[in-house]
Parts: sequence; C-alpha cells; structure tokens
Amino acid sequence: MRASIARRLQINAALTTDTLTAFLREEVEKAGFDRVIFGLSGGIDSAVVAYLATRAFGPKRVRAVMMPYRTSHPSSLADARAVVAALGIPSVVIDITGPVDAYFKQVDEVLGVAASPLRRGNRMARERMCTLFDLSAHDQALVLGTSNKTELLLGYGTQFGDLASAINPIGDLYKCQVRQLARYLGVPQPILDKPPSADLWADQTDEKELGFTYDEADEVLFQLVDLRLSPDELIADGYPPALVTAIARRVQRNQYKRRTPVIAKVSGRTVGLDFRYLRDWGL
Amino acid sequence: MRASIARRLQINAALTTDTLTAFLREEVEKAGFDRVIFGLSGGIDSAVVAYLATRAFGPKRVRAVMMPYRTSHPSSLADARAVVAALGIPSVVIDITGPVDAYFKQVDEVLGVAASPLRRGNRMARERMCTLFDLSAHDQALVLGTSNKTELLLGYGTQFGDLASAINPIGDLYKCQVRQLARYLGVPQPILDKPPSADLWADQTDEKELGFTYDEADEVLFQLVDLRLSPDELIADGYPPALVTAIARRVQRNQYKRRTPVIAKVSGRTVGLDFRYLRDWGL
Repeated sequence: MRASIARRLQINAALTTDTLTAFLREEVEKAGFDRVIFGLSGGIDSAVVAYLATRAFGPKRVRAVMMPYRTSHPSSLADARAVVAALGIPSVVIDITGPVDAYFKQVDEVLGVAASPLRRGNRMARERMCTLFDLSAHDQALVLGTSNKTELLLGYGTQFGDLASAINPIGDLYKCQVRQLARYLGVPQPILDKPPSADLWADQTDEKELGFTYDEADEVLFQLVDLRLSPDELIADGYPPALVTAIARRVQRNQYKRRTPVIAKVSGRTVGLDFRYLRDWGL
Repeated sequence: MRASIARRLQINAALTTDTLTAFLREEVEKAGFDRVIFGLSGGIDSAVVAYLATRAFGPKRVRAVMMPYRTSHPSSLADARAVVAALGIPSVVIDITGPVDAYFKQVDEVLGVAASPLRRGNRMARERMCTLFDLSAHDQALVLGTSNKTELLLGYGTQFGDLASAINPIGDLYKCQVRQLARYLGVPQPILDKPPSADLWADQTDEKELGFTYDEADEVLFQLVDLRLSPDELIADGYPPALVTAIARRVQRNQYKRRTPVIAKVSGRTVGLDFRYLRDWGL
C-alpha cells in the first residue's frame, strides 16, 4: 500500500473505540433493548465486535454465539473461545450441522444434483443468521453485524446471511482499519496473525477466493469510494487495470446486496422508495 | 370501509397487470437473469405473484416452491397445487420439517426452554427464505417477494424471512388491491374465499393476530401513508382512536424491518447512508 494512502487509512483507535461504543449504546437504547448478541467466528471482525460490545455494555449484557459446522476448522472454535475467556462473557455453541445437512439431504435428492460448495457455504451463512435472530428473540437482544466496509463494498458475504444484522458497529471500517482497532483493543495474537477466511470449506481463504489482497482492495476502494476517483484515474495513476476493474466490477455487481428488495411502484408513496422515514405522528 | 376511500383504493386491474409484468421483465433482465422463483403458500398474495410471473415470462421460466411444515394445514398445499395446475408451471415441494425440527431439538435443549410459537414461526419463515435463495442459485433465477403493502407497512412478516426477496411486484398494493387483482387474474375461488393466514400454527389467522381486519388496516394506512393525514386527523374524522393508534404504532415500531442494517458512520462515505448509488464508472 502506498504510504500516502496508508496514512489516510490510519485511524485514531482510542477515538474510534469511543465513537463506536457510544453508537452501540445509543442505537440499542433507541430500539428499546439493553443487551446484544453476535456470532463469534474466531476471525478478527467478530472479535473486534465482541470487544466493542463488552466495552459498551459490560460482560453481562452481551452473548457470543459460536456456530461451527462439521467441516469448520477446529482452530476457529478455539480462537473464539479465547475471546470469550479473555472478555469473560456469556456464550453458547450451536452446531449448525444438523439443520444444514437435513436440508441438503432432501434438496440434493429432489434436484438430483449435489449442491456446489458456494451453495453450501451460503446456506451455512444463512443458517447462522437464522440461529442468531432466533436466539436474539429468546434473549431479547439486538443482533450485531460483523461485516467490515471492505466486505460490504465488495459484496463479499451472503445476502440475508452474514450481511444481515440489526446494527453494525464496524461496517464503516476497512479491513486494515479493523486490524488497527483489533490491536488497540487487545484481540488475541493468533486471531491477528491468521489469514482471513470464511471457513466455509477446507483451505478457503478470503484473499485466494477474491483474487487480490485486502490491502490491495482497501487501497483501491478507499480511492474509488471515499475519494471519489474513477477507475480510469486510478489506472492512469499506475494501478494495474485488471485489479482496479475487478474491484470496481464487484462493487457494481453486488450493489443489490446493499439495498432492500426492489418494489414495483404503483402508488404515490412506496415502501423503500419514498416511504422511508416516519413523520412524527405524535404517538 | 367508507365508500369514498374504497373508491380511491380501486385499481385498474388490466393496467396494473401490464405495469407489473413490465416491471418484472425489466428488473429481471437488468439483473442479468431470465427466470424467476417464488414461494407458493396457497394464499392469495403468492398466487397473484405466480399469475403475474407466468404472464411476464411464460410458464417455462418460472418455478413455484411449496414449503410445508408438518403442522401446515393440508389445504394450503392443495390450494398451491391448484395454482400450479391452472398455470402449468414447474414446481417443487420441499418439506421444511427436517431442518426446522433439527434446529429446535438442539436449541431448546441448550437453552433449557421450549421455543414460543412466535419464535418457531419466525424460524419457519426464515427456513423458507434459505430454501428459496438456495434453489434460486441452482436455477439461476431471481427470487420474487410476495409481501403486500399492508404487511410491509404493518411490519407483519419476518425480517430476513418472508420479507426478504430480490424484487417484489406486489409490495405497493394494499391487501384489498391484491384481492382485486387476484379476481382479475383468475386466481382460484377457494384461495379468494379463505381467511388470510400465515399458517405458522393451528387456527392462526392474520386478522385475529393483528386485532383488526385488513379492510380496517387498508383504510387507515392509505390515509396515513398515501394521503399523509395524521392519526389525530383520522381520529377527529371519526375513526376509533384505539384502531388508529394500534396501526400507526405498528408502522413506527416496525420501521427497522423496512431498512438495511444501521451502520456506525465514521468515514466520509458509508454503505447504506451516503453510498447507495453508483456513479457510472464506465465499466
């Protein structure tokens, strides 16, 4: 990453922590809740959310949910347990193997074809969403999102799966900024050191699947999105055309994952279009 | 319903059909797809979507998915089959009992308490979403939503469950307008005649659960949302205060179901806030 861009992606970790814990407290209170719940995968993003949530609410009003599948790497659960132990927060392990396998047993037979790894991975991400929202109803807690800005922009996540949440404290931080915050918050070293992975199939790593590194993505995305440069300007500035185009295309193609369902407009005021905010009805 | 309001809620069914089939064709093509998939419950809303989709794409490029649970009323599946037969469209039945029961077997034990009917119903709605989106990946089809405007405004549906879709052709039609369209399109009479129900538990009907009728809801919602009157104005006009307040409160309380996750803003351009639309990057 060029030094000038790296400098601009540097965050004030203490200030960011204050901002994000205040955000969590305000939003949760506004929604009429006093506790939160989140999936804890063993990766850096959900670890940061766990540390922020514990700072915001104390250890008794948060719950971490670990949701392994039978093919998940055992180190994922071990890393998640290290976070739980370090923070002293309540947690629960729900194995998603039963429902996911019950699902594919039937569907593979009905369709006459074995589901692809991508379909299986998306189904697993959605199973985790189902689990988290159901447990949130039991706990009367709000579900925290754990997707960072890099993933949200690239659309690297499952719609109505890991991308679904009530509130997301880290959705405006690029991956490299999440790393800075993780170091500041004291996230355990093994989590900082391991290569990012959705752990949906063996040997999956994000960067192998994406075809570029997170540092490359952050550097290009920051200039496209935050600095509002065009792909052509970045290419003229010396960035590889294939890289810039691959990233910009992903942002465009996955736009649908960042919005609500498209509704056919046939009236004067339509949900998701011109009915978004409520006037004060004095209730 | 007062005659003056009923008149304003009257639709031109032929014109609306043309508009909605054109919407479906355009949006599906724009997304790079040429086929659609949707859940067919046996109720009036998804039946109307089935008729519209078949008009838009012909019978070969649509797929209806019936997703009964072991407690679903047998007449629901029978009514759905009548739609499939009338339209001559491909369909598949996926029983959601296996994954849902596998889920609660584990979670009820871990939490030490049996899930409430509401939690079970929401989990079933989300299981159907998971199924539909997985089958859509297999079919390379777009998922159609089947929630009407009354449900969307009242928040009468499961977030990331039945409220999730790619595009929704009927989301701007009140329930009474869906009924008008259903009659025009030739939806089978038993579906027109039966009381609306999510069929999530025995003897559930929407109107019993809501505490008011759909006609009452449509009449109040149309004036609050489309005519932009206030609850006080409706009450002054003679509508029962308890009814108006109950409806307006539901709209406010369930606002969160109509938006994307709330992201903490810490940068100049944030997903879901000021990064919604893409400039033309010339790709």
